[in-house]
Amino acid sequence: MTTRRIVVDGSEATARIAHLTNEVMAIYPITPSSGMGELADAWSSAGRPNIWGVVPEVIEMQSEAGAAGAVHGALQGGSLTTTFTASQGLLLMYPNMFKIAGELTPAVFHIAARALATHGLSIFGEHSDVMAVRAAGWAMLFSNSPQEAQDMAMVSQMATLSSRIPFLHAFDGFRTSHEVNVVELLEDATVRELIDDDLVRAHRERQLSPESPVLRGTAQNPDVFFQGREAANPFYAAVPGIVERAMRRFEEATGRAYHPFEYQGAPDAERVVMLMGSAVGAAREAVTKLVAEGEKVGVLTVRLYRPFDREAMLAALPKTVRGIAVLDRTKEPGTLGEPLYQDVVTALAQGWPADAAKPVVIGGRYGLGSKEFTPAMAKAALDELDADVPLHGFTLGIVDDVSHTSLRHDPGFVTEGDEIKRAVFYGLGSDGTVGATRNSVKIIGEHTDLHAQGYFVFDSKKAGAVTVSHLRFGPNPIQSTYLIGEAEFVGVHQFEFVEKFDVLALAKPGATMLLNSPYAPDEVWDHLPVELQQRMLELDIKLFVIDALSVAREAGMGGRINTVMQACYFALSGVLPRDEAIAQIKASIDRSYGKRGRAVLERNYAAVDASLAGLFEVTLPSEATATKRLRPPVPEHAPDFVQRITARIIAGEGEQLPVSALPLGGTWPTATSQYERRSIAVDVPIWDPEICTQCALCAIACPHASIRINAYDPKLLEDAPEGFKSVPWKGKDPGLQGFAFTVQLAPDDCTGCGVCVDVCPARSKSEVKHKAINMAPKVDHLEVERETWDFFRTIPEPRPDWDAETPIKASQLRKPLFEFSGACAG
Amino acid sequence: MTTRRIVVDGSEATARIAHLTNEVMAIYPITPSSGMGELADAWSSAGRPNIWGVVPEVIEMQSEAGAAGAVHGALQGGSLTTTFTASQGLLLMYPNMFKIAGELTPAVFHIAARALATHGLSIFGEHSDVMAVRAAGWAMLFSNSPQEAQDMAMVSQMATLSSRIPFLHAFDGFRTSHEVNVVELLEDATVRELIDDDLVRAHRERQLSPESPVLRGTAQNPDVFFQGREAANPFYAAVPGIVERAMRRFEEATGRAYHPFEYQGAPDAERVVMLMGSAVGAAREAVTKLVAEGEKVGVLTVRLYRPFDREAMLAALPKTVRGIAVLDRTKEPGTLGEPLYQDVVTALAQGWPADAAKPVVIGGRYGLGSKEFTPAMAKAALDELDADVPLHGFTLGIVDDVSHTSLRHDPGFVTEGDEIKRAVFYGLGSDGTVGATRNSVKIIGEHTDLHAQGYFVFDSKKAGAVTVSHLRFGPNPIQSTYLIGEAEFVGVHQFEFVEKFDVLALAKPGATMLLNSPYAPDEVWDHLPVELQQRMLELDIKLFVIDALSVAREAGMGGRINTVMQACYFALSGVLPRDEAIAQIKASIDRSYGKRGRAVLERNYAAVDASLAGLFEVTLPSEATATKRLRPPVPEHAPDFVQRITARIIAGEGEQLPVSALPLGGTWPTATSQYERRSIAVDVPIWDPEICTQCALCAIACPHASIRINAYDPKLLEDAPEGFKSVPWKGKDPGLQGFAFTVQLAPDDCTGCGVCVDVCPARSKSEVKHKAINMAPKVDHLEVERETWDFFRTIPEPRPDWDAETPIKASQLRKPLFEFSGACAG
Repeated sequence: MTTRRIVVDGSEATARIAHLTNEVMAIYPITPSSGMGELADAWSSAGRPNIWGVVPEVIEMQSEAGAAGAVHGALQGGSLTTTFTASQGLLLMYPNMFKIAGELTPAVFHIAARALATHGLSIFGEHSDVMAVRAAGWAMLFSNSPQEAQDMAMVSQMATLSSRIPFLHAFDGFRTSHEVNVVELLEDATVRELIDDDLVRAHRERQLSPESPVLRGTAQNPDVFFQGREAANPFYAAVPGIVERAMRRFEEATGRAYHPFEYQGAPDAERVVMLMGSAVGAAREAVTKLVAEGEKVGVLTVRLYRPFDREAMLAALPKTVRGIAVLDRTKEPGTLGEPLYQDVVTALAQGWPADAAKPVVIGGRYGLGSKEFTPAMAKAALDELDADVPLHGFTLGIVDDVSHTSLRHDPGFVTEGDEIKRAVFYGLGSDGTVGATRNSVKIIGEHTDLHAQGYFVFDSKKAGAVTVSHLRFGPNPIQSTYLIGEAEFVGVHQFEFVEKFDVLALAKPGATMLLNSPYAPDEVWDHLPVELQQRMLELDIKLFVIDALSVAREAGMGGRINTVMQACYFALSGVLPRDEAIAQIKASIDRSYGKRGRAVLERNYAAVDASLAGLFEVTLPSEATATKRLRPPVPEHAPDFVQRITARIIAGEGEQLPVSALPLGGTWPTATSQYERRSIAVDVPIWDPEICTQCALCAIACPHASIRINAYDPKLLEDAPEGFKSVPWKGKDPGLQGFAFTVQLAPDDCTGCGVCVDVCPARSKSEVKHKAINMAPKVDHLEVERETWDFFRTIPEPRPDWDAETPIKASQLRKPLFEFSGACAG
Repeated sequence: MTTRRIVVDGSEATARIAHLTNEVMAIYPITPSSGMGELADAWSSAGRPNIWGVVPEVIEMQSEAGAAGAVHGALQGGSLTTTFTASQGLLLMYPNMFKIAGELTPAVFHIAARALATHGLSIFGEHSDVMAVRAAGWAMLFSNSPQEAQDMAMVSQMATLSSRIPFLHAFDGFRTSHEVNVVELLEDATVRELIDDDLVRAHRERQLSPESPVLRGTAQNPDVFFQGREAANPFYAAVPGIVERAMRRFEEATGRAYHPFEYQGAPDAERVVMLMGSAVGAAREAVTKLVAEGEKVGVLTVRLYRPFDREAMLAALPKTVRGIAVLDRTKEPGTLGEPLYQDVVTALAQGWPADAAKPVVIGGRYGLGSKEFTPAMAKAALDELDADVPLHGFTLGIVDDVSHTSLRHDPGFVTEGDEIKRAVFYGLGSDGTVGATRNSVKIIGEHTDLHAQGYFVFDSKKAGAVTVSHLRFGPNPIQSTYLIGEAEFVGVHQFEFVEKFDVLALAKPGATMLLNSPYAPDEVWDHLPVELQQRMLELDIKLFVIDALSVAREAGMGGRINTVMQACYFALSGVLPRDEAIAQIKASIDRSYGKRGRAVLERNYAAVDASLAGLFEVTLPSEATATKRLRPPVPEHAPDFVQRITARIIAGEGEQLPVSALPLGGTWPTATSQYERRSIAVDVPIWDPEICTQCALCAIACPHASIRINAYDPKLLEDAPEGFKSVPWKGKDPGLQGFAFTVQLAPDDCTGCGVCVDVCPARSKSEVKHKAINMAPKVDHLEVERETWDFFRTIPEPRPDWDAETPIKASQLRKPLFEFSGACAG
C-alpha cells in the first residue's frame, strides 16, 4: 500500500473527513475553527461530493446557537450532520448538546479548542471550551497533530455511528488547527470503506418522519424522568470498546495505531506525566530524551477523555509508577484541581490495587491562551515529582509571583536533533510572508522525502502586525509542537523590523540571515541599529541582502515580494541542494500557473532567476559601528504603566511579564495606544499646502487619527523645525483671523491606507492625479515628518476658552448599560 | 429581639432579599424560577424600594442570553444587578458568566435548580443546570429550605460584595422554590445593616464610566493571557473565609448559624452521607432517627460548593468515619462519578492524614427531575456502606433493572413523629385548591404558634390536571422535604376523582376523608366504586361530605368552592381547636376583604357558616356494595405500549416503572393521547339538532377535537343507541343526498372550555342565550354521551374513495428540518 502524503493544517485535515462523511453542515465562524467551515463551504460550492456522491449542504446560521439548532434539527431529520466551532461559540451550542446526547444521536462536532473569554478575550488555544461542556454527555476524543486530526475525525465518525453517543473531536486551536505538517492521506476509498452503511441506515431510520412517526422531545414528570435518564447507561458503557474497535479497524486499513490511552516511555517508569492535546508532542520529546539518558519516566496520553475508561487508563500505566503529574490546559477557579487531574485521582482511588502503594498525583495548568509548552516544561513537571512535597496546582510557562504556583523550567533543555533544519521568517500581516512560507512547507513536504512543519505566529491585531513563521524540515515526522528557539535561518521580510525589535532573538550562533533591504549590500550595515550589529557579530551571523521590492517590480510582480524571498530562502537554506531547491520552486510555479500559459510561467521563472541574481552576501565588519539605536517601543514620556507593561508587550517581551504585572480582572488603563507607534505604513500621505482648500476632510476621514489639523498664532512658527509646513488660515472665525494653518501627519501612527487621498477634493490643475494630499514612500519622509509631528503636538488648541479637559459626566448618561457584553465577540 | 414569622415559598423568600439589595434585575421567565422574576417585577411596578430607597429597575429581555448580557452590562455600569433562572436558561447565560467572573464582578444569580432537557424535557428540580456551569468560576452556595433561601440570598450578597467573586445561589426547583414554610423574617433594617456601603461604593467605582475611564474586555495574546488569568487566584482563595465571616455576621444579627460545611449526627460516626440541596432535610431526619437508635452515622451538608474548601470539609467530618456515601442530584454520563463525589474523593486524596485509614467513598445519584428523596433512601445509602463491596455509581428512588445501579430502600422507615399533622388535598389545576391550601398554611404558620409546610404537586399538563397539596403542621420547624406518605386527612375536591384513581393511596388508617359530593350523604356511598369502598373499610376511614358547589353558589360565591372546602378542613382536621380554627378563618377573611366593606365580609362569614352547616359525616356500611368499578386508565383496546407504560403513568403509578420500561433516547410512540380520557370538564356542550344550521363551526373551533361531525347513510341508525341524535343532512354534495347528520361530543376528551358555544351562530328564537350548542352539567349527560360517542365512532367516513390512510411521504418534504430544537422550551 503506497500512502500519499499531503501537507495540510489540522483544520483542513479534519474538514476533509467531515465533508466526506456528512450530508449537512450548519456553521458559524469563530476563530480558530473558521477554517474548517470555510473549506467545507468552498468544497460544497465547488460541487465536491461526499463518499456517497452527494454534495453536502453547508448552511451558515446567525450564531453558533442557530448552528446548533440547525444541526439538531438536521440530525432529527436523519441527516449525517456536523459543525465546527470553538470557545464561547461552543457554549452557545451547549443547550442543544444535552438534547442531542440525551436523544442518543450520532454526530461529531469538530472543535479547534480555544480559550473562553474571561478577564480578557483570547482567540488562542487551550481546553477551557471543551472542558466547560463536558457535562453534556458527549464522548470526547482528542487529537494532537494534523495527522491525528484527520485520523481521529475518522475514528469519531465511525464510533459515533456505532455507539449513538455524539462525539466532540477536539484539537488545540492554532497549534494543531493552523500548523501545517505532513499528513498521510486517508484516501476517499478508505473513508468509504470504514463507514458502515448499516449504521448510517439505522440513523436514517431513527429520523422524525411522517412515514414512521415517533415522538421525541416530550415533557416528563417526576414519575419517569429519572428512569428515562438512566436508560442511556449501556450506551455510554459501550463507548470505550467501540472506540478501541474502531481504532483497530482503522489500523488495519491504514497501519496507524491509536488507543484510548497511549503510554510512551520507560516500561518501569516511576514518574509519569499525563496530558492530552498538542502538548503531547513536546512531552513525548522530553520523555524520549530523558529515557535515553536513563531516567525512569513516561508520558501517558489521553485520547478518549469521555467516557473516561478507568480500566484502560490503569492498564496503560506502568505498575512501577510512584508519581503522576497531570497537566490540564484549562483553569477552573474554585476547584481542588482541574478536570483531568480530578479524573486521574478518582481513577486511582477506584481502581489502584489496595495492597499497592498509591502513586502521588499532582496537577498543574499550562498553555492557557496558547502559552508555549516546551519539552523543558514537561521535564519540570516530572522533576517536581521528585520534590519532598510535590507542589499541586502548579503552573508551567509563566512566572507566578502572586500565588507562587509556577514551576521553573530549564530553557537549556532542548530535545531537537541536528537533523532538523529550523527557520523563522518575520513578515507583516497581509504581506504574503505566511503564504510563501506555508508554500515552502508544502513543496518540501509533498514533493521530497523530507518531513516538514510550519507554524505561524500572528497576533490578534491581524493586518499590519508582525507575523513570525516557524518552519522545520527533517528526515523524520516532526512532532515538535512548540515554537523554534534556535533557528539556523532568519528571514526578515521588512527592513523596518531591524529598528523595532531584536530580529535575531531566535537565531542560533552561525545562523544565516536574509534581509529584505532597500539599501545596497555595501550600505546596509550603516542602516542597522547598533544593538543588531552587536548581536550579528556575537552570533557570527551570515548576512544576505536582497532588494526584494525592486526585484519584484522589475520582474513584473508588482509589490509582491514573497516569491523573491522564497527563492532566496530555497537557495540559501540548505534544506535541499541548491539546484534541486530551485527546480522544486519552478515545479511549484508550474503547478500554480501552468494553466495560465507560457508567458506567465516565464515571468515567474524569471523572477526566481532575478532573485538569485539580486541576492548578495554582506561581509560583516569586525565591530559595531552604528550610532543609531533600536527605537524604544514607547516614548520616554509615556506613563509608568505603559513603560512597565505595554512597552514590554510591544517589544515582544510580554512572555516575561510576571502575574503581578497583569491588571486584575482585565481592567486596563485607557488611552495607551497613543504610545504605541506601530509605524507600519510603507507609503504615507504628504500635504501640499499650495492647493489645499483647508476643508479638513482628510483629518475627518482618517480612520487612524493620524492626519491632524490646527489653526494657530503664526508667532509659534518661530520655533518650528525645518520642513514644517504652514499657510495662512482661510477660515471666517473672527477669533482666528491672521492665524496660520497646518495639516500634519503622525507618521508612526499612519497605516498607509490612503483614505485621506481618496477624500481630498483639491486637485492640481497642472499634474494629473495630484491632490492636496498625496502618497509617497515613507522612507523618504520619515525623519522630517517625525520632527514636524513632535513640534505640531506642542501647538495649543485655537480656542483656549473651550475646556476640552472637562469630561462628560456619568450622571448625564442613563445608569445601566444594557446589553453591553463582549462575551461572544471574536 | 422578637422575630417576625412569615409563610412564603423559597422563591418569595429569595426574591425579597434580591429586590432589597439590587438596583437592576434583567430577567427572562423559565420554570421554576419565574416566580422570583414575577415578584420582583410586581414589586418594582408597585414602587417598592430597595434598602437604599430606590425602586429597582426590572427589565424583561428576549431570552436568558439577553438577560445575561443586560446583567453584564448593568454590572459594568456599576449597578448592583441580579437575575433569576434555571435549566437551559442558565446555560444561555454561561458565555457571559465567564466574563462576569473573569472581570471580578460582584453579582448573585438566584437559581431554582432544574433538570436540563436531555431525552425529555423536565421542568422539575435537580442540580444538572448549576453543575453544568460550575466551570465558569462562580462561587456556589446552596440553600435547602425557604428559610435558608432567604438567608443564603443574604449571605451570597454580602460575600460577593466582599470577594468580588460572583455567586450562584442555588436551591432545588419546586421542592424549595415552591414549598411554603415558616420563615423567620430578615427585616429590611437588618438587610440594610448587613450590606456594607463601602463595598457597594467600591463596586460603583469600578464601573465603566467616562469620569474615570478604564478599559475592560481586551483581546490578549499568548504572551500575557495566562498570567492575567492566574492573577485572580487570591480572590478565589479568600472566598471561603469571606463566606464564613459573612455567616458569623449574619448569625450575630439573626441568631441563625450557618457554615460552609455543616455536620449533624454522631460525633463518632463511622458512616456519613454527604449531599446538598433540599434532600438535606430528609437526610437529617434519617440520621436523627438512626443516631437515636444508636447508629454511628452522620450527614455532612455542603453549603458552599465552590470554591470547594477542602480544609473546612475535612474539619467538619468526624475522624472516625470509615465510609462516605456522596449523593449527587445530577448525572454526568461518561464520568467516573458525579461532581460532588469526585470532589470528595479528591479532598480525601489531598488532605486525609497519610497515617490514617482512608474512608471508602461511594457516589450515587438521586432525585433527578424531582424524583422523591426520602429518609429511607438516605438510610439505604448509609446501609450500602456496610456492604462487603459497597456499590459505587448507585441510584436511589428508582428500579434500575438495566444497569442494576439502584439501591433498595425500606418504605417502612418513617421518621415523622405523631406531633405532625399531615393532610393531602386532591384538586383540579386552576380549581383553587392549591390557593386555598396554601392559604391554610399561611393562616396557621403566621397566626398561631404552630409550624406549617405546604408543597403542591402539579404535573406539567397544568390546567385540568390533578393537583395534590401536601400540608404538614406541627410544633417544631418542619424540614420533611418529601411528599406525605401517611396522611391523617384527605380532601377530595372533585367528586370525579373517586372513579379515576385511588384517592386513599396516601391515607393513614383512621384518616378523615372530606369529599366534595354532588350526592347527598345518604346517597354518596352508592356512587363510589367498589375498590374505594373496600379501601375505606380497610382503613377505617371517617368520611365527611359536602356539596361544596351548591353551598358556594348559595352563599353567592359563584362556582368557587375553595373557601367552603377550607372551612370544612379547618373544622375537621384538629390542627387547631375547632372554635379557634373557625376564628382564624374569619380573621383571614378580615385581612383579605376588610377594605371591601361590611357586606363582602358578611357574605364570606356566611359562606363559612354555611359550609359547616352543609358538612355531614357519613356512617359507612360494614361492607362494599358497589358494582361500579374504578375506570381503567385506558380502554382495553389500547395497544400494548399504552397498556404497559402510558396507562400506568395516567394511573399515577409511573414511579413504579423500572428503567427498562422507558423508551431509549426519549423516543415514544405517537398517537397515544387518544387513549387518555382525562374527562376533566365540569360542564359539557350539548347539541340541539332543532336549531343547528350544520355550519360545522363548533367542530372546527374545538381546540380539543372533542366535537365531531359526520354525514352518513341513515340505515346505520338502526344500530344507534337510545339518545343518539340525528337530523337529515342539509348539504349539497350530490354523493351525500338523503344522508343523516350528527354533531357528537367525545365527553371524556372535552375540557369544558366552551369555545364551541362561543362560535355557534345559530340562536333560538324562543329562548334567550340558547344556541345549537349549549353547556350543561356533565354529570347529567355523561352516560348518554359516552354511549353515543362509542356508536358515533363506528360510523365510516362519508367518502370512502378518499383514502385517509395514505400518509404524506417523507420524500415530499425537504430533508433537513433546520432549526427544529426543543432545547429551550418550557
